[in-house]
Amino acid sequence: MSTRQLPASPEDDPRVRAVFDDIRTTRNTEYINNLWRMLAFDPALLENTWQEVKHLMATPSHLDPLTKELVYIAVSITNACGYCVHSHTTAARAKGMTDAQHAEFLSIVGLAAKTNQLATALQVPVDAVFDAGAGLR
Amino acid sequence: MSTRQLPASPEDDPRVRAVFDDIRTTRNTEYINNLWRMLAFDPALLENTWQEVKHLMATPSHLDPLTKELVYIAVSITNACGYCVHSHTTAARAKGMTDAQHAEFLSIVGLAAKTNQLATALQVPVDAVFDAGAGLR
Amino acid sequence: MSTRQLPASPEDDPRVRAVFDDIRTTRNTEYINNLWRMLAFDPALLENTWQEVKHLMATPSHLDPLTKELVYIAVSITNACGYCVHSHTTAARAKGMTDAQHAEFLSIVGLAAKTNQLATALQVPVDAVFDAGAGLR
Amino acid sequence: MSTRQLPASPEDDPRVRAVFDDIRTTRNTEYINNLWRMLAFDPALLENTWQEVKHLMATPSHLDPLTKELVYIAVSITNACGYCVHSHTTAARAKGMTDAQHAEFLSIVGLAAKTNQLATALQVPVDAVFDAGAGLR
Amino acid sequence: MSTRQLPASPEDDPRVRAVFDDIRTTRNTEYINNLWRMLAFDPALLENTWQEVKHLMATPSHLDPLTKELVYIAVSITNACGYCVHSHTTAARAKGMTDAQHAEFLSIVGLAAKTNQLATALQVPVDAVFDAGAGLR
Amino acid sequence: MSTRQLPASPEDDPRVRAVFDDIRTTRNTEYINNLWRMLAFDPALLENTWQEVKHLMATPSHLDPLTKELVYIAVSITNACGYCVHSHTTAARAKGMTDAQHAEFLSIVGLAAKTNQLATALQVPVDAVFDAGAGLR
Repeated sequence: MSTRQLPASPEDDPRVRAVFDDIRTTRNTEYINNLWRMLAFDPALLENTWQEVKHLMATPSHLDPLTKELVYIAVSITNACGYCVHSHTTAARAKGMTDAQHAEFLSIVGLAAKTNQLATALQVPVDAVFDAGAGLR
Repeated sequence: MSTRQLPASPEDDPRVRAVFDDIRTTRNTEYINNLWRMLAFDPALLENTWQEVKHLMATPSHLDPLTKELVYIAVSITNACGYCVHSHTTAARAKGMTDAQHAEFLSIVGLAAKTNQLATALQVPVDAVFDAGAGLR
Repeated sequence: MSTRQLPASPEDDPRVRAVFDDIRTTRNTEYINNLWRMLAFDPALLENTWQEVKHLMATPSHLDPLTKELVYIAVSITNACGYCVHSHTTAARAKGMTDAQHAEFLSIVGLAAKTNQLATALQVPVDAVFDAGAGLR
Repeated sequence: MSTRQLPASPEDDPRVRAVFDDIRTTRNTEYINNLWRMLAFDPALLENTWQEVKHLMATPSHLDPLTKELVYIAVSITNACGYCVHSHTTAARAKGMTDAQHAEFLSIVGLAAKTNQLATALQVPVDAVFDAGAGLR
Repeated sequence: MSTRQLPASPEDDPRVRAVFDDIRTTRNTEYINNLWRMLAFDPALLENTWQEVKHLMATPSHLDPLTKELVYIAVSITNACGYCVHSHTTAARAKGMTDAQHAEFLSIVGLAAKTNQLATALQVPVDAVFDAGAGLR
Repeated sequence: MSTRQLPASPEDDPRVRAVFDDIRTTRNTEYINNLWRMLAFDPALLENTWQEVKHLMATPSHLDPLTKELVYIAVSITNACGYCVHSHTTAARAKGMTDAQHAEFLSIVGLAAKTNQLATALQVPVDAVFDAGAGLR
């Protein structure tokens, strides 16, 4: 079930076709996953979303590809987005995540959520040394 | 303001003192930040929390130290824990995070939250290829 | 699957029947959706919840009906409530939401989540001009 | 700072005055805390919110008063509502919460958040035995 | 306190200056609020974020300006982003939000969160009629 | 669907077998639910998680068993963890939760989320009397 129908022949629209072709080339696969197929109902939304994902996730940059996926999954877990957890865990494996790394990642994600609760529950005042300007004066 | 008083002389309790000493040694600093000082109201809670943080965050492992901090911050941002965002951003800088990496990290954290909203709003069905067992059959 | 059984003949209870009848009249449909059928296990909870929904969502007021649905969906997406996203997206369409409006709504919901992450990650101090009392002095 | 001014003389409005008087009587105190003072900008919103809080939190019922406060705080922590964490932790203490209970409560709130992350990260399928109807067939 | 210093003379960078000038022109004010000033540490992040905000929030479109602000605030409240709640509530007032609309908006945002909890707590199965394809067959 | 395969014969690993045996003894049942079976992919993660759950949830302590389950469910609902809501609602029933208590619990969980939204939307300043140190001076 979903809140929109999957468009039947999305690639009849040349803007959609161009994005799908770019996804296929960038990822070196024929497969277009459901998020992109659903976003095809609005070509502008599809284009903008894909450009941002491609720019940040599929381009060499200052963080290594696996770290970027782990950050992405961490946010997705915390937001309880099942689709995103599935798609980016798959991507992390494709980028070399081992079982030991996965277990450690899960432990850290769990620990962070736990200490988030403690700090919020106690309303711990932020230490002055954590102020970004503090060390500079 | 906080929901508990900071204990006045927490290290009068030997269990608290042992944890604080371990924090000082592990982090090579005299400074004990407020979260630990507040948790000192219950030595068992303090011990358990510190042991878990030390084991996962301050011990060489399968993920590099900066990646672990970034995952921690990603969860903390998404849970809106100001204290944790402050303390772990400070830690990430201490572990070498550059401005360019920080900017890229922020961009990915923002993008993930954005696509989480899209996938949840559309209730996109999970692709069969993302099922962990799928590739094995 | 659910955490409670759907009651078999909920309308045998006159309080449940009265609420269901009011839902049918207010919405001009015979269909009672699953949330109301499940809440029927406790007539008081059912009555209170329906009264609040009816009062706010089905009564002419200071905000137009589509705006109210969009606000409702925005909260439901952010809380990752699949059921509520489904039911209120259906309602928004019934109240005239076009595909172009849906795409724009999705873009704003995504943008808000993204900038929420940026502001929380940076712990941006609130500008004095945003204080509600500021403009008055 | 806040997004609305605190009304200067809210009790000039008889509807506000009636609610404030009921708060004073119900809680046996002269003090009206800021949430109620701010809600006074709209008497209907103030009345409805107070009635619901009074009915559920200040009336003898099927759950004991401290349990109700702990449930309230658990939700408030998870939603990162600092104001609510403060006000209901104060209320829990007034209802007898000991330091040992507070520490245990914090531990459970942290553990729940941690295992929430694990279950969501793994997308664990719900066991058939947890279906509410399962035991009945 | 914040996790980055506000850059001292951000407009010495021509890319930052161009964005700030565009903000001033678009909003018809000399004031640049803190979020933009902090993002100036990375001109690319600043440019991308502002372009997206300008395109969606400051350009005539399929949804009216106040509705867009209300959707933005609804997400920001649910994500507990104090900065965003402040800045967009200010913006909503500038776009004509009345006190009566504000009160009604607050009531709906509260109601949505409440029914989100009920639907998630009961794990209510989604009605087949809410499937976007259902009505078309 | 899930992001990991259920291990086929997890109890071939003696560390997994020891945990599963302890679960069976502690809970007096032969049934091992899916969360534990999935965590078996990493024995250390399984051991640590189970030890924490056993220590907090299955050991007599300062809070009664049903209160602990309700707190657990409250966090799980707010984090939208369907699996956890299912498993702990089942546990709460096993510990004696009545229908009337369930309905009241749901009402409080909903009310808390609603007032969280109100307090965050208004950015209500925390009253000085809620500061934990306030009453002591």
